[in-house]
Amino acid sequence: MKRAINFSAGPAVLPEEVLRQVQEEMLDWRGSGMSVMEMSHRGKEYIAIHEQCVADLRELMAIPANYKVLLLQGGATSQFAMIPRNLLRGKTSVDHVYTGEWSKKAIKEGKIFSKVNVVASSEDKNFTYVPPQSSWKLDENAAYVHICTNETIGGVEFHWTPDTGKVPLVADMSSHFVSRPVDVSKYALIYAGAQKNLGPSGLTVIIVRDDLIGTTIPNTATMFDYKQHAEADSMINTPPCFAIYVSGLVLQWIKRNGGLPAMEKRNIEKANVLYNFLDAQSFYRSPVNKADRSRMNVPFTLPDEKLDEAFLKGAKEHNMVQLKGHRSVGGMRASIYNAMPITGVKTLVEYMGEFARKYG
Amino acid sequence: MKRAINFSAGPAVLPEEVLRQVQEEMLDWRGSGMSVMEMSHRGKEYIAIHEQCVADLRELMAIPANYKVLLLQGGATSQFAMIPRNLLRGKTSVDHVYTGEWSKKAIKEGKIFSKVNVVASSEDKNFTYVPPQSSWKLDENAAYVHICTNETIGGVEFHWTPDTGKVPLVADMSSHFVSRPVDVSKYALIYAGAQKNLGPSGLTVIIVRDDLIGTTIPNTATMFDYKQHAEADSMINTPPCFAIYVSGLVLQWIKRNGGLPAMEKRNIEKANVLYNFLDAQSFYRSPVNKADRSRMNVPFTLPDEKLDEAFLKGAKEHNMVQLKGHRSVGGMRASIYNAMPITGVKTLVEYMGEFARKYG
Repeated sequence: MKRAINFSAGPAVLPEEVLRQVQEEMLDWRGSGMSVMEMSHRGKEYIAIHEQCVADLRELMAIPANYKVLLLQGGATSQFAMIPRNLLRGKTSVDHVYTGEWSKKAIKEGKIFSKVNVVASSEDKNFTYVPPQSSWKLDENAAYVHICTNETIGGVEFHWTPDTGKVPLVADMSSHFVSRPVDVSKYALIYAGAQKNLGPSGLTVIIVRDDLIGTTIPNTATMFDYKQHAEADSMINTPPCFAIYVSGLVLQWIKRNGGLPAMEKRNIEKANVLYNFLDAQSFYRSPVNKADRSRMNVPFTLPDEKLDEAFLKGAKEHNMVQLKGHRSVGGMRASIYNAMPITGVKTLVEYMGEFARKYG
Repeated sequence: MKRAINFSAGPAVLPEEVLRQVQEEMLDWRGSGMSVMEMSHRGKEYIAIHEQCVADLRELMAIPANYKVLLLQGGATSQFAMIPRNLLRGKTSVDHVYTGEWSKKAIKEGKIFSKVNVVASSEDKNFTYVPPQSSWKLDENAAYVHICTNETIGGVEFHWTPDTGKVPLVADMSSHFVSRPVDVSKYALIYAGAQKNLGPSGLTVIIVRDDLIGTTIPNTATMFDYKQHAEADSMINTPPCFAIYVSGLVLQWIKRNGGLPAMEKRNIEKANVLYNFLDAQSFYRSPVNKADRSRMNVPFTLPDEKLDEAFLKGAKEHNMVQLKGHRSVGGMRASIYNAMPITGVKTLVEYMGEFARKYG
């Protein structure tokens, strides 16, 4: 058994000690005689797992009591539709900030349900920066303002929180969720697919202020209604139990390791190792505006894309996998989520140096 | 480590050798250095797992080439909305057969999208039988006829296939999926939550005739559009990878054990052990019409509900768990899916005999 150094953008590396615990408990969860995969979701064993996961998330993120935490299915893509269905509340338009591929998908889906105003965009510079709020053309009658606080593909991250006044702020935090503290009270709704920092794919976390839910547009399915999910404690039907169980173990791992402030500190250290290296040489290029660089997803390019294959092959020989960049950006991308140890980043930088000396 | 004899209605018992394989591969899937939970869904390792799962299902069920197989999220409850959204195709009403709790949920959700005609019902006898087709009042202009071929709660199963002529037949097969051979060509759409015979919760399988998809009613979310899922090979966004992986291992276990005809033979044998016992005594009562008894879910009641607690306590002492019946039916329910060995059913019957002698 040899573990790879795994830079996947998601599903992504998980803490090894969590995987060992999952392995240990696979046939018999704590004397129950059952795998978590085999438990009735209405039974006391699974209910305890489910409630602990929610409680730990509330504690780690200091989620105020007037916010509901929902553990749903369908990924961020389902949220792109659920959010307008629930948060339009009779309004006729929404504001979106356009900072990359995931913003784009939210905008496209949003147009199915209402007018979408793109109030700011970084398209002019190929989505390599976050437009400053001074340039945003917000509409005070918008139902909400939607942002993607970390663009997984472009590697652009919000390092500040917009102030949208009385207009609810909605954030897709999928790819930097639980990587740092967040002041939840500044958001109306936060959502995240689990498969980056939290756990396996198939689980989506929604944190929503409770006064905003309860009204849906006509023809909304039960499974697209936040209020009904909230009233059923995310158990309108069988939840993705195993993904919730693993995510709960990851949350406990975060707690044991100092919580979100400690995660942020580690993530800054790791990102610095990689960005400091990139800034001190000229072989590789980091396309993103320095102030808006993501601590989670670090795209970089080689001087000639003909070198990409050799770079990836050499990385594999050094036990490093999933470094290929997204096709829309090209080059490489190193995703360095919570569970990536600093040694992994150092190994990458060392290899990048070697490769540059050989091909530079 | 002691495995329980697990009669859960779902999530339910899985084959022990599958769980052992999952355990074995947890930290390093076949030399990749990654858990399946950590793999990019666009990477060659996961794509191979995904495609094998679909191919094995196609082979086991002999699914004709003009049917799409979709691996989605959201459970049967999402299907209750997706089916009308995709299959209404300009029609204004649908026909439903009402045979129990799951039929009821489909009817209720269907009413959000069109007129629902309940063309047959077994409500008159508390959902203890399947109304014969001669009594169905079908409408030849209905968009489709919806049935639930195995009612998990009531324990009622279709042992025959309705003939709905040119009107598409849609079936919720969640709780007896892959428990027996099915002539897929007689159905327009078959759907099933995985968490009974197939794998963990969080995965829903849809088998749909390809000429029926491509039209949706206005305001349909991307994630509710079968056609878009089909075109993206169920990867519009990140699928529930781990649930698909485990389900794939279960399908391979079914193949190694003789396929669906062998599953059916085993399931008939197991059901006979339990029903023959029930029929040969008078302490316990089986509420379901003999011809319509489910091979998967066997509800039974004790002569006095005050005995229920003692029955469950004794069962636990004999290592048998999750026998409590659904609150809407009361009494007990033994779910005896594919992965329940015949020895488990024999242990149950032996205990039931002991208990009856003690309390009868």
